Amino acid sequence: MPHLVIFYTLNIEAKIDMSELCRALADTMLKQLDEAGKQVFPTGGTRVLAYPAPHYAVADGKADYGFVYLNLRIGAGRSDAIKNEAGRALIDCARALFDPVFKDNLVGLTLQVDEGAQVFDGKLGNLHPLFQ
Amino acid sequence: MPHLVIFYTLNIEAKIDMSELCRALADTMLKQLDEAGKQVFPTGGTRVLAYPAPHYAVADGKADYGFVYLNLRIGAGRSDAIKNEAGRALIDCARALFDPVFKDNLVGLTLQVDEGAQVFDGKLGNLHPLFQ
Amino acid sequence: MPHLVIFYTLNIEAKIDMSELCRALADTMLKQLDEAGKQVFPTGGTRVLAYPAPHYAVADGKADYGFVYLNLRIGAGRSDAIKNEAGRALIDCARALFDPVFKDNLVGLTLQVDEGAQVFDGKLGNLHPLFQ
Repeated sequence: MPHLVIFYTLNIEAKIDMSELCRALADTMLKQLDEAGKQVFPTGGTRVLAYPAPHYAVADGKADYGFVYLNLRIGAGRSDAIKNEAGRALIDCARALFDPVFKDNLVGLTLQVDEGAQVFDGKLGNLHPLFQ
Repeated sequence: MPHLVIFYTLNIEAKIDMSELCRALADTMLKQLDEAGKQVFPTGGTRVLAYPAPHYAVADGKADYGFVYLNLRIGAGRSDAIKNEAGRALIDCARALFDPVFKDNLVGLTLQVDEGAQVFDGKLGNLHPLFQ
Repeated sequence: MPHLVIFYTLNIEAKIDMSELCRALADTMLKQLDEAGKQVFPTGGTRVLAYPAPHYAVADGKADYGFVYLNLRIGAGRSDAIKNEAGRALIDCARALFDPVFKDNLVGLTLQVDEGAQVFDGKLGNLHPLFQ
């Protein structure tokens, strides 16, 4: 963690560079610092994955609406200030890339941050150690 | 919210019009009324996204089983009666479209409704204001 | 339930047989037994779906990192021992298939097990009865 998954309607695909958005959001997470100036999210645990939905329905369906849902899952235990600051920074990052899209399209974007409450957590691989 | 995501096995794709299902489920949500006759879910926040899984395994794998998982995330604070009624209405909607599929195929369908407990919630775009 | 969804970066697709992984993980779940020797997870409710993400960003983006996220949702009420044993068995199963991938690639894999807390749960279809 943090683990950010983006679910979006396929009609958004042609209007924005989604890979660029993923990178910008990951960089935003990596820049978050806590009260002691320490990185909030570990580099090796930071990832963003984005999925266009081939089938969808939005609102009343009377126009070619688009929708983007960003769900960030983080570990529990961080302060409200840190969580709010991270949320706001991600929204600002998304706004910078989506503002041109909002001009000519009817699109909604929601970011929700969840604290994971998993009953089991296992890890494998060589990515985390690379950054420690 | 409400935010409905459908994850299903790719072998279902040829057996049902998934875009039609998305629209029917969205319409079902828009028709939900509370005790005061008010729309339960805001039009601008209603969306359904459906994802066929290219890789999957179901049950014991001894036949070409299919599976459809519908996960609806709603805001917290609604009455049990409203939540149950919305759940039942969505199941009825799915049944109407899937009954012909169940006749000739071994398919399971599960709907689960979760109340979001997000620690941050941010919105952008021009979709919500359109319906207010 | 159990319901296992795998979200992974598209660069993993060529390095592992993801359908084989799905099947191996499903078989692992089906083999879990409780203290009384009874199957922990019902056959008709066991399913694994895997989704490659066409857009993604991992860690600092300075190399072709891969990431695999396994999220298992189970019903509430099982003992800690059973949940830990299931988690460990799934990690062992993933390790067996991913060890060759880890040798030549920078890849992280995380498994998290969540207990569902749905406010509504509905089922349709002919899959569950088949195994009862």
